[in-house]
Formats: sequence, C-alpha cells, structure tokens
Amino acid sequence: MLHAKPLPSYLVQRYHGWKATTYEENQSWYRRLAESGQHPRAMVISCCDSRVHVTSIFGADQGEFFIHRNIANLVPPHKPDGLQHGTSAAVEYAVNALKVAHIIVLGHSNCGGVQGCLDMCSGHAPELEEKTSFVGRWMDILRPGYDRVKELDTADEQRNALEKQAVLVSLENLMTFPFVADAVEGGKLSLHGLWTDIGEGSLEYFDPAKKDFARV
Amino acid sequence: MLHAKPLPSYLVQRYHGWKATTYEENQSWYRRLAESGQHPRAMVISCCDSRVHVTSIFGADQGEFFIHRNIANLVPPHKPDGLQHGTSAAVEYAVNALKVAHIIVLGHSNCGGVQGCLDMCSGHAPELEEKTSFVGRWMDILRPGYDRVKELDTADEQRNALEKQAVLVSLENLMTFPFVADAVEGGKLSLHGLWTDIGEGSLEYFDPAKKDFARV
Amino acid sequence: MLHAKPLPSYLVQRYHGWKATTYEENQSWYRRLAESGQHPRAMVISCCDSRVHVTSIFGADQGEFFIHRNIANLVPPHKPDGLQHGTSAAVEYAVNALKVAHIIVLGHSNCGGVQGCLDMCSGHAPELEEKTSFVGRWMDILRPGYDRVKELDTADEQRNALEKQAVLVSLENLMTFPFVADAVEGGKLSLHGLWTDIGEGSLEYFDPAKKDFARV
Amino acid sequence: MLHAKPLPSYLVQRYHGWKATTYEENQSWYRRLAESGQHPRAMVISCCDSRVHVTSIFGADQGEFFIHRNIANLVPPHKPDGLQHGTSAAVEYAVNALKVAHIIVLGHSNCGGVQGCLDMCSGHAPELEEKTSFVGRWMDILRPGYDRVKELDTADEQRNALEKQAVLVSLENLMTFPFVADAVEGGKLSLHGLWTDIGEGSLEYFDPAKKDFARV
Repeated sequence: MLHAKPLPSYLVQRYHGWKATTYEENQSWYRRLAESGQHPRAMVISCCDSRVHVTSIFGADQGEFFIHRNIANLVPPHKPDGLQHGTSAAVEYAVNALKVAHIIVLGHSNCGGVQGCLDMCSGHAPELEEKTSFVGRWMDILRPGYDRVKELDTADEQRNALEKQAVLVSLENLMTFPFVADAVEGGKLSLHGLWTDIGEGSLEYFDPAKKDFARV
Repeated sequence: MLHAKPLPSYLVQRYHGWKATTYEENQSWYRRLAESGQHPRAMVISCCDSRVHVTSIFGADQGEFFIHRNIANLVPPHKPDGLQHGTSAAVEYAVNALKVAHIIVLGHSNCGGVQGCLDMCSGHAPELEEKTSFVGRWMDILRPGYDRVKELDTADEQRNALEKQAVLVSLENLMTFPFVADAVEGGKLSLHGLWTDIGEGSLEYFDPAKKDFARV
Repeated sequence: MLHAKPLPSYLVQRYHGWKATTYEENQSWYRRLAESGQHPRAMVISCCDSRVHVTSIFGADQGEFFIHRNIANLVPPHKPDGLQHGTSAAVEYAVNALKVAHIIVLGHSNCGGVQGCLDMCSGHAPELEEKTSFVGRWMDILRPGYDRVKELDTADEQRNALEKQAVLVSLENLMTFPFVADAVEGGKLSLHGLWTDIGEGSLEYFDPAKKDFARV
Repeated sequence: MLHAKPLPSYLVQRYHGWKATTYEENQSWYRRLAESGQHPRAMVISCCDSRVHVTSIFGADQGEFFIHRNIANLVPPHKPDGLQHGTSAAVEYAVNALKVAHIIVLGHSNCGGVQGCLDMCSGHAPELEEKTSFVGRWMDILRPGYDRVKELDTADEQRNALEKQAVLVSLENLMTFPFVADAVEGGKLSLHGLWTDIGEGSLEYFDPAKKDFARV
C-alpha cells in the first residue's frame, strides 16, 4: 500500500493564509497563467540547497523563471543513449518547447555536494566512490573541474574554486547539446554563469573576457 | 571558448535592490545559515514549471525546504547501476545526509510534461518515442500511471488524473529506495503527496484511507 | 540610537495570512478577550525550548493558559528581598490577580539547560561556575536536584532524572510562596508536575502516591 | 510532602487526542528534532498573557522559535552580579549557545502588567511599591518608560504608549548585554520590536527611521 500522510497542520494553516491573501490579490494573474500557459523568459539551473532562493534574489514572479534544481547545479554532457536524464530533459524542454532566451546556471558558497566531490576526488570519501552511491556518481560530472583546482594551496580555496567550476563545467556541457549550441549560435539563447555567497549576499558572474568571475 | 554573457541589466538592477533591502534586513539570518549549515525540515520535489512556487504557497523562508525540481516532479525507481541519476542523488542526500523528516511531492495542473506523456502514450507524439528525446525517455517513468487513466472518458479527465498519477508513481518509486523505506518504517520520515491547481490556487493531498486526493 | 529592524518579509507574509484566516474566523472571540480581559484556568511553567509547544499538546486556545517560559522550567524559592524575580512575579500575578486553578510545571527530554547543570555540577563546565554566567547562576536553582541523581550509573540516566528533578524542585519551591501554599491548602489551587519526551510524544505526570512519574 | 495532583481529565483526554493525530502525523519531525537538537532561527520575548500566541500569528512550527515569556515582555539591563536573572539567562543561551539570528520583542494591548506599572508610578497602587511585591519590583524595569509617557492626556493613551515603551525599553536593555551588542554590531543578530492589538489582530513594528511604530 501507498505510504503517505496528510500535510502537517502548520503547513495547512500557512497555505490557507496564502490562499486568502497572496492568491486572492493575484487571482487574475494566476488564472491567466493557467489559461495561457507559461512563457518564461529564462531557465535557471540551481542547487537543491534550502538556503538558495533564486526567486527572492531576483524578485521573480510566478511565470518568470523555469527552474531546475539538482545537487550542485550540474548539467551532464549530452548523451542520447535512450536512458533517463532528468536534467537533459529539463534543458530540452526549456530550449525546444518553451524557447527561453536565457539559461542561467547559479552556483553558491557552502555547497555540500561540491564538498562531497572534493572529498571523493582527494581520496577522503571512499564511500562516495562506490557504484551504489547516487551522490558520488552524480558528482562524477564535476571531476573535470577537480583537476583544474587540485593544485590550489588550501582546502578553502579548492572548495571555493570547485563551486565555480560546477558552474563552468555545466556551461561547457550545455554547449554539447546540439539544440543549445544552435540556439546560442543563432543568437536566440544566451548562457550565464553566476555564483552567490550565502552569508554575504554577494553575486558574481563569469566574464569570458577575463576568464574569471567578477562582482555583479 | 566558453560561451557566457553578463547578466541582463534588469536582473542586475533587481539583484542590487534585493541586496539593499531583503539581504540587508536579514543579514544576520543569512550569515547564520552560512555558518551553521542547512537543517531543512522537508525535501520538496516539484516541477520546473515557472508557475509553481512552493516557497510562496507555504510562506517558507531560506533554510526551510530542500527543493529538487524536475519535469513533472517525477522520481524514478531505485536503480543502483552506477549511472547518473540526479533525482536519486537528491533524495539520497536529503534522507541520508540532511535527515529530513518529510518528503513532499507536489504535482500541479496544466503540466506540460504530463501532457507530453499523455500524447506519447496515446500515439499522438511519435517524436517523443524516439531514443534521442530526453523528455520522452524521462516521461517513461510515468507510463505505469498512464495505464491507470487511459480508460477515462475525456482528454481533460485523463490529463488531470495523470497529473495526480505523477505524484503517486513518485511516492511508490520513493519506497523502492531501501534508505527511504527504512526511514519511513522507522518513523523517521513521512511522505506526502500534493497537487495544486494553478488557476484556482487550490491544494489537494493524497489520503491513503480514501485512496484519493482531497482538498486541504 | 535604538537598534531595531523591520520584520523579515516571510514573517510579514505569514502574519497577513493569519490575519485573513485565523483572525478573521475568530474575530468575535478575540474582541471579547480584549474587552473582558483574560480568565485563564491554568498557569503553565515551561521551557523556552523551541521544540516544546504546550498549546499544541493540549489543544489550547487563546485565553486558556497563562504561560511563563524560562530556561529549564524552573521556579526559584520564595525570596522577598526587593530584587527583580521575573518568575516569582509571574507566579504572583497568576495566583493573586488571575486566581488560576492550576499551576502546571512541564519538563521535557533533551533539555539543554539541564544538560548544562549536569556538566556544571559534575565539574565539566567551569565556565558555568563563573559569577558572570547568567545560565550558570540560573541553573543553581537545580543544584539540590543534582545531589539526588548524581549516584545514578550512566550520564543518560542522570540527565533524564535531573530533567524530572527540575519539575520536582520547582514544585517544592512553589510551596515556599505563602500565597501559593495558602491557595493549595485552601483547595483553590492545585499543582501538577509533567514531563514530555519530545521524540516519542509521551507525557508523564508526577504521582505523589508512588513518588514517581507515570505515563498519562 | 510534595503537593501535586494528577492532570485534570479533560487535559488527559486532549493529550491523547493530540498523540493520536498531530503527533502521529508529525512523528518523523519530532524524532528528528529530538535527535538533531534545536536550531531555532529566532528568540521571541513575549508576555505570559494567555491571549497572545506568537506561534499562531506566525504559523510557526515546533523548532522555529526559542520563546521566553514573562510579565510584560521585559528585559532588565545587563547586571552580572552573580544573582539569578532568568530573562538574562534565556537571552544568553539564545545568543551564545543557539546563535539565533533574530530577537523579537512582542508587546500587546490590554497588558495587565503594564497597567499595574502605570497605576504604581502614578501613585494609585501603593501595594505594588512594597518591597515584597514581586510584580511591583519586576515592573520597576519599565519606570524609565513611564517618564516618557506620563504627560499624555488620557489614561488610555498613557497605557497604550507604555505598552510600546515596554518593547523599546527592552530593546535598549538588550543592547547593554555585551554579547548582544557584539552580535548586533557584527551583523549576526538583529533586533525587532513588535506590538499587537489583541482585539483587532493588528501588528505594528518599531521603525527606527520614524522613531515610531507603524503597521506591518
């Protein structure tokens, strides 16, 4: 039998509060969104981390961003092998069906997934090397990034640099999708790499001219 | 060379507004979150759809929900084959590392992914059947749900029922993960199935006693 | 100048939700409470711990319990020395002004204040012995309880027993207040000792006949 | 002998109801809270008054707020004299041990403690002036507030203004604690002053820019 429980009552109470205020005040917009479908201007690929709220940072409204969230905001390389690729499916839907104008990859400080990758690649987390570790296999996507940061002096520098590599590796992998490359080269889609510091509230973007991140 | 552009200026402007207001007012909380790590009480599995904002509906703050978003809020069955499974990695991290108390699967009305699944399974979208269609292969997860709704009279009824099946199939698949089943049976984790109507702002939960969804 | 910031926006949103639902539905009762004053049937002395919600456990409504919360739900002995005693003031107001019929002291498992007392009394927390430690001086109230549990075998047994001593010492100290003793002996006030296990949701009460706690 | 009675049966009954429903539905969350300890984001200092339920107003769940409640939501000035200061102990624990990001002082309308202070300071309650009056000595904390409101025209205006002074005097006194001032100045803690009208369900916050309270 199916295991499921009712919603905890404090969430029920908060939902009713939202319904009576935010929903009530925006009813016409929500109805329009339901009837006309979504037309988001951007896809955002962000981490599952509970501390990163991209809609808050950018004051985004319902309907504005098509948001995929996974561990460490990673995009795997294009691999049309007939198997299940949830991130690739989201990218395909955003670009081909929704025709978004931007894909924004948003990395962040204090990322537990990136820390796990660092531990694994530096030999300190053998459990993540096991075939049965979903987190380990997922973080394999970031191995090429580890090779670029492993010579840095301190563990803090390595982690910080690897968080930014998670953005860059994803941007590189996005370009291996033929429909992404076509849209970028046709001027219909632009890619953006961002990294935010949770504690400081700062935001950096990747500047291809400087080949480095710079403050927004 | 890496393709990336600076952030569009309207987003830069909004970010600076957020930094000067929301961040400034909540600086102490963001710093605490950065230093003490995240302790989210729940994992939410939601759709990428730009119209579904779970943090808004539940008045959730930074730090409260660990959020994975993919096409049609699907969880594949447990398959420890050493390949990349982003959703499985997110579930593993939430349950084993963060030890969340709840996993909430949130489905919604007007779901484009579910519509695609319906079209594909009923023979109206041969392009989704192709091996190279990432969306098609991802929506294969929901095929068992289609079999349960295909006898319904109208296309609308079928789509509505299939949106709810996306929640139920995911809840069923979650229980195929040994660490999820162990935590549920040990009383340390509870699963919840929800479905929201975007236009009406209504919220339904799956009630195992009635084997059906009911208004919250 | 006075340091104060506006309320974080997620709390503003939740407040507006409460106003539009819970308040709206109970407006007549809230207005009556404002006009007729409070007539609580019981005073509850509970811990500040964020995990203990006495109003939830007892389904209490606005107006039902006069609640004082401090570290480790302690009542100091009666000491009319003209200095500031916040807990004694709360007890005095409840008994003499509000004429409550019950005083319930509610202890709980996993109490950080009680753990601190145990560490201090067993010589493992010299910083709590310092004159300037407010927590240490406050936990001095529980020293007589430590003497009764220090011979127990394990640290776990000692902490559990000391959590219950926090209830018993407080009940003993309550009876040193002449107005409490008079009301109890006059049959106008009864005292109750409770202890709850946060994880198990169990509730125990002190049974004077058995001189021990028993399941409710 | 220890005076204590069993719990009144109507409370026993309500507890069993809570155990079979709310506890049962949230068991996983309560167990997690017991095992992982509390990580509240805010401390709330509120009145014992039975009509003020801060968890209801803010839809707060177990684990969210560390709550100290005393007569008239007062904080005394920092005074490390080695005597017992329950409120100071609670503040010390919240800031130094739990590292909360916010301290919210919540005042309210129709406050009996504030009324007593007004009566005492205006010479209408000599019994509160006595050395043995715990309520009188506790309300001495608010005397500096009385001096700022005593020129107001009506008794109602004075009481209303003094209720808000109870919030402001407490915020001022909080800043006399070196560890509070350090945390505030280091951007790790923010203070908030609120006042709620019980009958109207309104909520006001202190705005330092305007030096006055304003509607939320």
